[in-house]
Amino acid sequence: MADLPLQPGSMIGILGGGQLGRMLALAAGRLGFDVVVLEREADSPAGRVCAHTIVAAYDDAAALAALAAVADVVTYEFENVPAAAVASLVGMGVDVAPGPLALAVAQDRFEEKTFLNANGAPTVAFAAADSPEAAVDAVARIGAPALMKTRRDGYDGKGQRWVEHAADAARVFAELGSVPVIVEAPADFVRELSVIAARGRDGATAVYPLAENHHEHGILRRSLAPARAAPALTEQAERIAARILAGLDYVGVIGIELFELSDGRLLVNEIAPRVHNTGHWTQDGCEVDQFEQHIRAVAGWPLGPTRAIAQVEMLNLLGDEADTWSKLAAEPETRLHLYGKRAAKPGRKMGHVNKVRPL
Amino acid sequence: MADLPLQPGSMIGILGGGQLGRMLALAAGRLGFDVVVLEREADSPAGRVCAHTIVAAYDDAAALAALAAVADVVTYEFENVPAAAVASLVGMGVDVAPGPLALAVAQDRFEEKTFLNANGAPTVAFAAADSPEAAVDAVARIGAPALMKTRRDGYDGKGQRWVEHAADAARVFAELGSVPVIVEAPADFVRELSVIAARGRDGATAVYPLAENHHEHGILRRSLAPARAAPALTEQAERIAARILAGLDYVGVIGIELFELSDGRLLVNEIAPRVHNTGHWTQDGCEVDQFEQHIRAVAGWPLGPTRAIAQVEMLNLLGDEADTWSKLAAEPETRLHLYGKRAAKPGRKMGHVNKVRPL
Repeated sequence: MADLPLQPGSMIGILGGGQLGRMLALAAGRLGFDVVVLEREADSPAGRVCAHTIVAAYDDAAALAALAAVADVVTYEFENVPAAAVASLVGMGVDVAPGPLALAVAQDRFEEKTFLNANGAPTVAFAAADSPEAAVDAVARIGAPALMKTRRDGYDGKGQRWVEHAADAARVFAELGSVPVIVEAPADFVRELSVIAARGRDGATAVYPLAENHHEHGILRRSLAPARAAPALTEQAERIAARILAGLDYVGVIGIELFELSDGRLLVNEIAPRVHNTGHWTQDGCEVDQFEQHIRAVAGWPLGPTRAIAQVEMLNLLGDEADTWSKLAAEPETRLHLYGKRAAKPGRKMGHVNKVRPL
Repeated sequence: MADLPLQPGSMIGILGGGQLGRMLALAAGRLGFDVVVLEREADSPAGRVCAHTIVAAYDDAAALAALAAVADVVTYEFENVPAAAVASLVGMGVDVAPGPLALAVAQDRFEEKTFLNANGAPTVAFAAADSPEAAVDAVARIGAPALMKTRRDGYDGKGQRWVEHAADAARVFAELGSVPVIVEAPADFVRELSVIAARGRDGATAVYPLAENHHEHGILRRSLAPARAAPALTEQAERIAARILAGLDYVGVIGIELFELSDGRLLVNEIAPRVHNTGHWTQDGCEVDQFEQHIRAVAGWPLGPTRAIAQVEMLNLLGDEADTWSKLAAEPETRLHLYGKRAAKPGRKMGHVNKVRPL
């Protein structure tokens, strides 16, 4: 185990070489840290802004041993890294943050909602099913229409379908691959919000202002932050964040997606044990952004301030939308963040902008 | 020659792998560029946050050819890169910014002051000397006490001595190595200021607010920005910056050190054709900092806004002062920037902090 807090010059390992890894690496660089990335693909976005890249599958034993040999702590940029890889690192004495519990909870939608409810963080009603019959049963219990999702491996709206009638449940279960699923009641929400929060090694927590989020086809398009929110709503979100962070004995930044109901209650939609797309606004709206905050937390440093210093509209640049960089670069209120991805496939997150104005 | 403006994903070459190169590389990474660094030492601060490093002397022909082969444009982090290296890159068709004229002027204190005066940017009185006799003569002409400096290769107060009496000039000339020198009249200044300015490929210019600077033993300790300054003083600085940028047909960020005289006039002390230590405050005091601004300029992108959004006190962390990082990281108003240097020699710039408060 590394001595904490990590000295500047220490090596931080990141599992995953995408844009979140890239922005984590840039933040780590600003604080004087070195970064090593373990990533399947050569020439990755994060691999091009860090000291070392290990190109291998996440479950490659030799690669994990090489990572363990050089990294003082390890973190990850997304929650679908194999739990076995993290367990293997922990077995080699590596400090991995956020820890295995957060990963296990976030990798399985049923475990996640069960954990949330058990920790006083309300969600929609839900039921698990692992057979066509159980799926029909679950939808009947929850009530149609309901949302059926694979328990594992879903992101950006993938791996989920609406079930209009209980009788359709067996067919939808098959369409989703006949894998274990969760059936969720629809949330009658008026707004999608999220809260980015952090917890340090010492248990200190810090919560950013709420963001209001707008999705299209399951992909985040736009966040507005700080969101208009009465103090009671903000307090409710902070209470939820505190319970989740404590319940997971969490270290690092977490993204918590919320539904705001018409009666003012907040339900947790899902949690992501990592820096989060709805937190990108903090890069230009806060003194310490979510990326530096995450690095501070995993390095055992004190957390930084989370108050907003500007009003931000964050817009994702999907696919060839990033080709408008030249126009965007000329807008004085627009801060441009591009990820260095080589191929602009439709819907692929190529970058984002933060449009900034005074609070 | 690369097509300008440079597309994101293009490769920007940087001569020099120190902290300025590191912060340029981090800014380039944020905009989706790749960076290749040419630097004498392996394991350099910049080399650990970029895609490629070529470890070689700046005048290594094979290294320069390798750089020319991969870089779409080349810039540099300090003005003492050999002019021949830049000429060689230009000869291979590489677009180097800022260009050879800026480098030639900045590398020779006599050429520099001659250029400044010729372009309407006032300086102290000065005279060149390249023999002991000429040195005595020059001091007699300028008047003692005077400052004798080597024409080339000085930085951070190195390569300069006071001459108290004209009779001492020959001895001081010998102490400075019997190389060509410049003799300068003392500036009876009330304040040291600097202005960071930028010029794009299209000739557009942008000027940051003035910084007030405090040196110790020739090394910058502290900058306050925006400096208290009457509009007339700011206009005077902007006029000087515009003349210098136009006179050099400049592309990139330039640092211009100024003396404020008791009668309100500004003299130019020296210019640095690169990002500048007195511009580090822009990282946390402006929307687009000097590093991104420099990358924008050399890439042929539009310049970004330069207005201040916060009041900043920048403090350099010299030698083991950087060991206080843990205390500094806990201060909510303090933004920490560390350079990843391995050895904290006395006086070595290891990092800096920007202490930020509202305007």
